[in-house]
Amino acid sequence: METSATIAAARPLFGDRLSVNHAIRETHAHGEANAASRMPDAVIFPETTAEIAQLLALCQANRTPVTAFGAGTSLEGHVTPVAGGISLDLSRMNRIIAVNDADLDCRVEAGVSRKQLNAYLRDYGLFFPVDPGADCTIGGMCATRASGTNAVRYGTIREAVLGLRAVLADGTIVDTGGRVRKSATGYDLTRLLIGSEGTLGIITEIQLRLFGIPEAIGAAVCGFASERGAIDAVIEIMQTGIPVARIEFADTGQMAASIAYSKLDLTAQPTLLFEFHGTPNGVAEQATMAETITAAHGGKGFAFATETEARTKLWQARHDSYWAARAAFPGHGAFSTDTIVPISNLAAAIAQARDAVTQSGLHACIVGHVGDGNFHVLILYPNTPDGAARAWALDRTIVGQALDLGGAASGEHGVGIGKREFLLREHGAPALTMMRTIKSALDPLNILNPGKLFLD
Amino acid sequence: METSATIAAARPLFGDRLSVNHAIRETHAHGEANAASRMPDAVIFPETTAEIAQLLALCQANRTPVTAFGAGTSLEGHVTPVAGGISLDLSRMNRIIAVNDADLDCRVEAGVSRKQLNAYLRDYGLFFPVDPGADCTIGGMCATRASGTNAVRYGTIREAVLGLRAVLADGTIVDTGGRVRKSATGYDLTRLLIGSEGTLGIITEIQLRLFGIPEAIGAAVCGFASERGAIDAVIEIMQTGIPVARIEFADTGQMAASIAYSKLDLTAQPTLLFEFHGTPNGVAEQATMAETITAAHGGKGFAFATETEARTKLWQARHDSYWAARAAFPGHGAFSTDTIVPISNLAAAIAQARDAVTQSGLHACIVGHVGDGNFHVLILYPNTPDGAARAWALDRTIVGQALDLGGAASGEHGVGIGKREFLLREHGAPALTMMRTIKSALDPLNILNPGKLFLD
Repeated sequence: METSATIAAARPLFGDRLSVNHAIRETHAHGEANAASRMPDAVIFPETTAEIAQLLALCQANRTPVTAFGAGTSLEGHVTPVAGGISLDLSRMNRIIAVNDADLDCRVEAGVSRKQLNAYLRDYGLFFPVDPGADCTIGGMCATRASGTNAVRYGTIREAVLGLRAVLADGTIVDTGGRVRKSATGYDLTRLLIGSEGTLGIITEIQLRLFGIPEAIGAAVCGFASERGAIDAVIEIMQTGIPVARIEFADTGQMAASIAYSKLDLTAQPTLLFEFHGTPNGVAEQATMAETITAAHGGKGFAFATETEARTKLWQARHDSYWAARAAFPGHGAFSTDTIVPISNLAAAIAQARDAVTQSGLHACIVGHVGDGNFHVLILYPNTPDGAARAWALDRTIVGQALDLGGAASGEHGVGIGKREFLLREHGAPALTMMRTIKSALDPLNILNPGKLFLD
Repeated sequence: METSATIAAARPLFGDRLSVNHAIRETHAHGEANAASRMPDAVIFPETTAEIAQLLALCQANRTPVTAFGAGTSLEGHVTPVAGGISLDLSRMNRIIAVNDADLDCRVEAGVSRKQLNAYLRDYGLFFPVDPGADCTIGGMCATRASGTNAVRYGTIREAVLGLRAVLADGTIVDTGGRVRKSATGYDLTRLLIGSEGTLGIITEIQLRLFGIPEAIGAAVCGFASERGAIDAVIEIMQTGIPVARIEFADTGQMAASIAYSKLDLTAQPTLLFEFHGTPNGVAEQATMAETITAAHGGKGFAFATETEARTKLWQARHDSYWAARAAFPGHGAFSTDTIVPISNLAAAIAQARDAVTQSGLHACIVGHVGDGNFHVLILYPNTPDGAARAWALDRTIVGQALDLGGAASGEHGVGIGKREFLLREHGAPALTMMRTIKSALDPLNILNPGKLFLD
């Protein structure tokens, strides 16, 4: 790994867009989680795909590791260059290249952020629905197969991408997919790159599906006597085919924290939050149907609001749930698990997770994108020498429980460093071997984000 | 390719489920199109994944080609064993393994047909929406990345599959994906196998997403003075976000043929056919919105029906459009093109296709899944020595026009033999090289459906 040779050769290409400054390297040493941290040897800020192609050819020649960096919001250590080398910061590649309103699609560079895109699209009456909460980049969302609260209605980033431009390990620029809604020709390279976490190529441009901003949006909140009742209501709502845009769960502890933090006039009990998109009549009908079903499962006080202010307050509270939980446990660290199970096992998974929390002696709040079966246990751990380790152990337990219930080790945060040990258990040895075969064929020198996805 | 050694070794494993009978080999020599035909050396009818694993290990050892065969409805020669060897007929693997109504999913063997599955699901109040028209197998649909009239609302088979079981070239049994709605862990092997046309593995089991049968279904038909008006109406309907379940176009020629064949009380003019799914109120509202938009684009006599009989007659006529066209041109052969363009280019693509038809001197009818930009030109060619060749040349022209308009060489029929020459033009050399790299890594001896997808 002759990184110094790569840096020397890259310097004339990138000028002051190549930095070995300690502070800049430090900000590229880690994402947002408390996972591993390691500084890259240099940070490079490319402005074009062609520059990245030149750089990767250099890196391959010198066997220099390359790790892409978007907004740095990864929770699983994806952006940490664990083997050193180059951190490739795509923040300057933030152009919105085209918006096609007749086709409901757009083309963006990988460094465009989710909020930047939606602000730009507002005048077109369009929006991009995938919302992981954080203001991550579209490239990062593709690399980690991100999703969020709207996935139950609009799908994840996997369904949102029509095509990609990427640079492979040897510097080849590849275009995958295209502008059409579907194509029945050739291997689905687009889906292969989505979720590959920078280990197969560096995504530089994305063709994205868009949606019209709904004519009407309504929100609702409903408390339940039991978690089981809330989950059963979700199952029936999904079976009934009500096209809910969002259906989110928060447990009693999270509600108590959010009520205090966001000054909500609600009761601390298991709660479902809804959002409905459609025509005014359609939204009202969806809400009525959802209310009937929640009532049949012990839901009380179904509160429906179409006013923007009330909706915004509710969803801001949902997005602030992390900060609300932290405020409820001052002096504690926080660690978010991310698992998903078939929805028929969701009540069991949440109950098992709660038992594990109790046994651990730690505090935790549970929230979930429950229409998909995806939930997060936000573990609050004391600032003691063993606090983080206890949280980590609890996370391992909860992931194992989800896998035993037919689930996946991550619904939306990805593998990175933190979930590598579960890949074998979730997918089995043959699938893992097939993944490694593909990796070896496309990046034989393992220069692309080494140390991620696979345990070495 | 020591096929005789493979047959000798496989005979004790399969007994009379291995056939070298001429008639059976002949039925496995081709799909439904007038593409190439070649008999396999033997046809094997496996009953389990384990049997296929044993067989593929044998085939790999002897370098014997293996081509999977489902219902034989391929229009692009996928099932033709162009290099001889074994035709693997999956029709005995037709068990519906599980239906999970809480999770809206099911697990089936690859030989289960679309209609078989939907008949089975009816008592659960569930349905599987992907409908390519033909009663193809679920395995075949996965292998060719099939879709159909419902794709505009429910997606293609790509979105419908949660996980797969497949046998790789060396006999390894691999499970991909799982039962969860989304997973952010590992390469998307499921999507890699979907559309790989039997060249990367033999799909044996599929975990599928299902949907609840809608409470209400409505259909509508609307004629237009011009094709442009019809297409512009489609674009506005999609932009408005009306969740149409089906939106199909038929040109004047097709309508004349269908009116005669299916005894429809309609006018021969450019026509849109709609289907709406939802609540009774929702369906009525969708229809009203669609009617308003069609009227603004010159649509006349928007006829809405919720009665099952009227709907069934309309959609049966749509599904019979191939036979209607053939009846209108007795003594002619028929050849269906399959292209897709961004919907903003759909009117231009159809106009160019019509010009090409006129220049060719052949007859043609045009139908399309226009919500996706996907359309078919059904070419009717005379039974003369050069008839089929003229149809083939016209098809090449139409595909080229679609590619020049940012489209794909196939929206749903796949590559097989017939579209191989367009793969480079649609995807470019780097993507094609990446596909070949994956193929070589996973099937180094090229025993899986050789001669498909890639030009040698």
